[in-house]
Amino acid sequence: MVNVDKFIEKAIQQIKDEINGPAIIALSGGVDSSVCAVLAQKALGELLTPIYIDTGLMRKGETQRIKEIFGYMNLLTINSKERFLNALKGLTDPEEKRMAVGEAFIRVFEEEAKELNARYLIQGTIYPDRIESEGGIKSHHNVGGLPSVVDFDSIVEPISELYKDEVREVAQALGLPKEIFSRMPFPGPGLSVRIIGEVTQDKVDVVREANAIVEEELLEPFKPWQTFAAIIGKGTGVKGDQRIHGWIIAVRAVESRDGMTAGPMELPWNVLNKIESRITSEIPDVARVVYDITPKPPATIEFE
Amino acid sequence: MVNVDKFIEKAIQQIKDEINGPAIIALSGGVDSSVCAVLAQKALGELLTPIYIDTGLMRKGETQRIKEIFGYMNLLTINSKERFLNALKGLTDPEEKRMAVGEAFIRVFEEEAKELNARYLIQGTIYPDRIESEGGIKSHHNVGGLPSVVDFDSIVEPISELYKDEVREVAQALGLPKEIFSRMPFPGPGLSVRIIGEVTQDKVDVVREANAIVEEELLEPFKPWQTFAAIIGKGTGVKGDQRIHGWIIAVRAVESRDGMTAGPMELPWNVLNKIESRITSEIPDVARVVYDITPKPPATIEFE
Repeated sequence: MVNVDKFIEKAIQQIKDEINGPAIIALSGGVDSSVCAVLAQKALGELLTPIYIDTGLMRKGETQRIKEIFGYMNLLTINSKERFLNALKGLTDPEEKRMAVGEAFIRVFEEEAKELNARYLIQGTIYPDRIESEGGIKSHHNVGGLPSVVDFDSIVEPISELYKDEVREVAQALGLPKEIFSRMPFPGPGLSVRIIGEVTQDKVDVVREANAIVEEELLEPFKPWQTFAAIIGKGTGVKGDQRIHGWIIAVRAVESRDGMTAGPMELPWNVLNKIESRITSEIPDVARVVYDITPKPPATIEFE
Repeated sequence: MVNVDKFIEKAIQQIKDEINGPAIIALSGGVDSSVCAVLAQKALGELLTPIYIDTGLMRKGETQRIKEIFGYMNLLTINSKERFLNALKGLTDPEEKRMAVGEAFIRVFEEEAKELNARYLIQGTIYPDRIESEGGIKSHHNVGGLPSVVDFDSIVEPISELYKDEVREVAQALGLPKEIFSRMPFPGPGLSVRIIGEVTQDKVDVVREANAIVEEELLEPFKPWQTFAAIIGKGTGVKGDQRIHGWIIAVRAVESRDGMTAGPMELPWNVLNKIESRITSEIPDVARVVYDITPKPPATIEFE
């Protein structure tokens, strides 16, 4: 990308050239889909319907903020919490879980696409997504890559040549709020990839709270590429004089240029101690907090 | 304990006074049972048979070293690896696992006790064990506390008034090698408490190797109260261009006075990075390494 303003101008023109009817985009609130939604909105106006699916796997307060930020658009929000939880029931394999979320997502999305008679699909695929998809590393990062039963006239990917930092520049130039343009990547399957083993409402609630604490403590002061909490199992602990069996929460905070490789952040111990103390005292049934010290590779950024 | 030499003298005299026939002790190689074995050997000579049960859940090289250090005694070593693995088959609950190991242990031990016509049992119970047993925190730390079908004339606990650091002083005064007197606590159920979920031969092999690496990197330079590796589940990773599903290893290193409370050590990042790198490169199928940042309480030291 040579110049942000020129890129924006060209992208809007390209969308105008390629799209001549009702268009939809899955708006997750991530920087990629947000940028595409704004570009498409500028190009298409009311022809565009951004669809936000509340999977129940979103972060704390996220759905509310999406409505506030994108409410000026022709935004459609769908509450599908039960559907996703049911789709995940009994699944423990990470691939099966991703597939289940991906399939539920595409099914909901297609139902809406049909109802709207959408002829065009806009996707926020970026350059590293395409590279990683080829290696099979991401089996479902966003809608792209899943087979669609809706026969769109075409699929438009306005930012498919950009790296993440370039997308952030575009987002800022488009006037999106800081929480969007500096927002960390958040995977399509949401909190389900931060739960090892079966996804249950209990675990989602715990990991959502832990995640909020980690973001509060780390986002502003340390500006990680990505930071979050995951549930990785149960272990023993002590409360009062009693032995308990509580959740083990992993904290992840990484530096990266493009998400393709990443290194764990070397955080000050007082910060790690505060996070540990907040998580174990504010969230019931958490017995232990660990900090992920593995780069990518050999680990992925998310736990799955 | 006022004075080490006086304590030793008194303890040996007490054992002589209380024991008038064949006596046994379960020698694990931990500082507690080692000190008791040496005290009892001094008091009883050939009347004492220290019994070392190789559960297959021991650390790397441990069985060999026990034979070298205690070979001058009337030492009996029993290979019971298959028996313990079978006893643990299918169990995932930490309490059930501890109980299974404890029961297998006591059964093997009793068989030997009967064969030897042992009339006296010597145990390495220390003061914090007694306190914690009352709160139900340790359901099986050593042989003590499990019901015995062998009707001993009496059970003698020569160090039941001592704290851990006092036991170490006694061990040193008794001339035991440094690897014993400065040895970390290692729980009765061995590596099985460092495996979350079912114990399998695969997991035992992985955790044993990871444990050896952690000890090599941390024991001498940092002198932790206790340090080890545990397997806490499986997560995703990347090797080459391929997505893999590998073990998650947790590293634990704590400071403590007596094991009743403990704090995570604030290790230098280059040390944590080296441990991570060695574990993921030297052990196949490990995708991720995390460092436990939780004090006891609310976590226990071991993972279970």
